[in-house]
Amino acid sequence: MTPPAFDPAFHEQFATLLRWRRDVRRFRTDPLPDGLLDRLLDLAHLAPSVGLSQPWRFVTVDDPTRRSAVRASFEACNAAALHDQRGDRASLYASLKLEGLDTAPCHLCVFVEPMPDQGYGLGRRTMPETVAYSAVSAIHTLWLAARVHGVGLGWVSILEPAAIVEALGVPPHWHLIGYLCLGYPAEEQDVPELERQGWEARRAAGDTVIRR
Amino acid sequence: MTPPAFDPAFHEQFATLLRWRRDVRRFRTDPLPDGLLDRLLDLAHLAPSVGLSQPWRFVTVDDPTRRSAVRASFEACNAAALHDQRGDRASLYASLKLEGLDTAPCHLCVFVEPMPDQGYGLGRRTMPETVAYSAVSAIHTLWLAARVHGVGLGWVSILEPAAIVEALGVPPHWHLIGYLCLGYPAEEQDVPELERQGWEARRAAGDTVIRR
Repeated sequence: MTPPAFDPAFHEQFATLLRWRRDVRRFRTDPLPDGLLDRLLDLAHLAPSVGLSQPWRFVTVDDPTRRSAVRASFEACNAAALHDQRGDRASLYASLKLEGLDTAPCHLCVFVEPMPDQGYGLGRRTMPETVAYSAVSAIHTLWLAARVHGVGLGWVSILEPAAIVEALGVPPHWHLIGYLCLGYPAEEQDVPELERQGWEARRAAGDTVIRR
Repeated sequence: MTPPAFDPAFHEQFATLLRWRRDVRRFRTDPLPDGLLDRLLDLAHLAPSVGLSQPWRFVTVDDPTRRSAVRASFEACNAAALHDQRGDRASLYASLKLEGLDTAPCHLCVFVEPMPDQGYGLGRRTMPETVAYSAVSAIHTLWLAARVHGVGLGWVSILEPAAIVEALGVPPHWHLIGYLCLGYPAEEQDVPELERQGWEARRAAGDTVIRR
């Protein structure tokens, strides 16, 4: 087969996409256009998965009571996280905006089926965590695809996994990977919010590479 | 700031990129051009990470003795995996090509630092596995970036993590995420090898979505 050829203009646009993929916590409230979420989910489904197991499970969350339960879990976990911070870090932590649960029009929770029949166990005998890694790849695919369409995504991890499983009424053996807020960004930035707010700065790529 | 606008042609090319990202196990032996791996690592470093912790650690593996130790771990784990398969599945499993360790010119092992100072613990108090998920996002970014440049990547997970830590002489508390083979594909395919060989078939995206 003849593979696609990606020209230098695409190389540059792809790098721009990566630079502008941000964790968004400030959303406009207008909904996504009809059909766009389904399109993004179709693209996410092209992600790699261990043994072709496609173990990701997506849950769209629209019910207000369920959304409130998710928010309650965030608030409890975030209060505990604040309690762990000391001195200046505590006041800085308290000032951070870490989620867009109230304004994001679209809530999408991602789980993994830890023991999928699909794939016949291939590739995960010694590293069963690869099913979770497959779901992460699907989230990252969705994230980039959303950004291509101008949609922002924020990944909320300050949650109690068991509380989310219960709040959403999913099979109890499913494992929470992440809770995603999607919508159009209220502001556009190519610098991470945590960097702009002085929490942390990005380091050079070379610091993370060693040779053997 | 003014965000980039991605036009319909880019939308289509991006979808093509996702469709052509394959797990490659059949490589040409010619090396990657000088500087390309560094460029891919720079792009991978743009991946999202929990609390801006950038916890991924990349190890380029060139030493033949270390590569042999990795191959030995694969062979032991793959023999055990074959032993678990029954009947027709066993003979099918035995026929699969699951890695390109011998021909891929570039070997890249990815670990995570499980307790990074960077990020000050933000976002991972209740879900410490998010550091590993950050490293997976970096791998997936690298994977797509490689494909943009015509380079194939194969993720080998049929390994004993402790054996790989020892073989590569990395800090013992690092956690293996995946062992990657990179190089130009010996053949180009837009259908997964596991599907072409009859191991598993992809399912429709809608099967993995529920509403709440």
